[in-house]
Amino acid sequence: VSDAERPGGLPFPFPTVAWRDEAVVLLDQTRLPGALVWRTCGDVAQLCGAIRELAVRGAPAIGIAAAYGLALAWRRAAASGDGPAAALASLGAARAALAGTRPTAVNLFWALGRQARLAERAVAAGADAATVGAALLAQADAILADDLARGRALGEAGAALLPERCAVLTHCNAGGLATGGYGTALGVVYAAQASGREVRVFADETRPLLQGARLTAWELAARGIPVTLLCDGAAGGLLRAGRVDAVIVGADRIAANGDLANKVGTYPLALLAREHGVPFYVAAPASTFDPATPDGAAIVVEERNPDEVLCLGGTRLAPAGVTAWNPAFDVTPARLVTAFITEKGVLRPPYAASLAVLGPDAGA
Amino acid sequence: VSDAERPGGLPFPFPTVAWRDEAVVLLDQTRLPGALVWRTCGDVAQLCGAIRELAVRGAPAIGIAAAYGLALAWRRAAASGDGPAAALASLGAARAALAGTRPTAVNLFWALGRQARLAERAVAAGADAATVGAALLAQADAILADDLARGRALGEAGAALLPERCAVLTHCNAGGLATGGYGTALGVVYAAQASGREVRVFADETRPLLQGARLTAWELAARGIPVTLLCDGAAGGLLRAGRVDAVIVGADRIAANGDLANKVGTYPLALLAREHGVPFYVAAPASTFDPATPDGAAIVVEERNPDEVLCLGGTRLAPAGVTAWNPAFDVTPARLVTAFITEKGVLRPPYAASLAVLGPDAGA
Repeated sequence: VSDAERPGGLPFPFPTVAWRDEAVVLLDQTRLPGALVWRTCGDVAQLCGAIRELAVRGAPAIGIAAAYGLALAWRRAAASGDGPAAALASLGAARAALAGTRPTAVNLFWALGRQARLAERAVAAGADAATVGAALLAQADAILADDLARGRALGEAGAALLPERCAVLTHCNAGGLATGGYGTALGVVYAAQASGREVRVFADETRPLLQGARLTAWELAARGIPVTLLCDGAAGGLLRAGRVDAVIVGADRIAANGDLANKVGTYPLALLAREHGVPFYVAAPASTFDPATPDGAAIVVEERNPDEVLCLGGTRLAPAGVTAWNPAFDVTPARLVTAFITEKGVLRPPYAASLAVLGPDAGA
Repeated sequence: VSDAERPGGLPFPFPTVAWRDEAVVLLDQTRLPGALVWRTCGDVAQLCGAIRELAVRGAPAIGIAAAYGLALAWRRAAASGDGPAAALASLGAARAALAGTRPTAVNLFWALGRQARLAERAVAAGADAATVGAALLAQADAILADDLARGRALGEAGAALLPERCAVLTHCNAGGLATGGYGTALGVVYAAQASGREVRVFADETRPLLQGARLTAWELAARGIPVTLLCDGAAGGLLRAGRVDAVIVGADRIAANGDLANKVGTYPLALLAREHGVPFYVAAPASTFDPATPDGAAIVVEERNPDEVLCLGGTRLAPAGVTAWNPAFDVTPARLVTAFITEKGVLRPPYAASLAVLGPDAGA
């Protein structure tokens, strides 16, 4: 993997998480769009740091990174001579550390759960440490490959909802960078483009960390899709002017009743879309749906460091002594969601019934 | 006036526009909160530049600055020996230049119209150039003094709407800095504090130019009012959590039917307030009401340089080649406004009737 590469030649899908030489390698999203830099995590502590700092972010991508993280933990233990019982203890510690990085995205817990169950069953069945290590890596690879395949299926299901010429408004980055490489909300856009539709995107810049300006704009521009940035507060005027055919966002956790957590600023968009009769679609794979969370009130919303709001690039924006409230997510009630776009098709209200199609693939 | 002064000792009201030594002196709001710097405009071209660059901003403050600007234009002409007819021509040119700076705030046109009418009538009545120059300066002083008095009256009318302990959410800066020194939306907060109410403020940071983070936080903190910043997109979660008792904003132009233009991001707040049963108040002096504009569709919304969105402090945030849509304002329909808070009292729907109380003080 090269250290720096021009986005003009961006392959598609573009990997955001990979396994190389017994390490988890991440495209460092804190450095985009200025630099295309890969960050190597040789142990779980480094990976936890990368997740907390948002070097890797986006619910599906965090899940993939965590799956590789447990493979890493096991294989390091096995390489240092640990047998299955000791390796299982290391894996448990790694699982706890990774689970503590970010509370909201359910895909993280889903991936950790799948890997832990695999290891526990294999050990119970008498597998040796090397065999379990190979199986954990293979399952992480499968989770990544599966994410790409599901991204394509989801994208195609969503593209069919769009008119031949359309303008899509999106928030944050639910693109290739947030997933194994294809995308959820932007996966719909890519599939629409591939199907011959003329699609353009309005991208909220998405304060405080500007994932829209830095990441969504970057990957869309690199793929030749016309993209116009706007401040988050400008979406109201845009919708009011009738310039948007569909709002499409991703999600970090979708409760059993269809309430969802997504990047802060999503809920106002949903309200605006309803006010203006514009469909509001949430694009997410089955792993983002959490049957164990009954509704939005039960979703834990991560609050992050106020400095993300108060400072930018090391420069303080606000006066000394002033603080900020910095929730990473907000909760959008199911009644504002026109449909969920998933790899198993487009799910419409009533969600208590329609989400059942997701079955055992649903998260956590 | 000192070049730098600690905000801790901020006098109240704090002048944002003043007349000193035949020049218009402005507190340079582009430099806040880092530095308290005064900018001297010795001619109308400099003043136009200062208005365009937002060194002075806020509808009432722009009106005051423009009133002084026409006094400046006349007095410079008179000082160079022009008689009334030539000075009137200079004044006409200055009026056109100032009117071209920012299209949305009606107070600008209101102040220009008042000054121009005064000069025209005085010249028609046979006044000499020095007399007209003195009268124009006196009227600019009166517009400033009047703004302060109206700000106090408006603040007291609004404070009576608030409970004894309350949290107010505001957007942009409708404070002392946006006016002659007292404020509209923040004038209500100051009056509430003065009346013994326990008031705290949540301030949207207000992208792209961060007037909430830079200006509102600065003036509230300097006056000991607890203030918490948030990203514009976070207001939805804040209202949904029931943490706001009232939303109070200013306005740049209010149409005859009560539709209003205010800083971009205001309209989503109004929609959120209605959704959560929180009152949405618009605080503005009579000069902000424009009977000549029938409704929001007739309001011209200024679009500013995309670089305000794409760059911050000289650093580009978005990838090269990506553009942005950067409207300075949005339009909020009258049906979302719980009441207008004015110096003539609190005006409630139906606005077509209640706004009539503003009479000849209304703008343009």
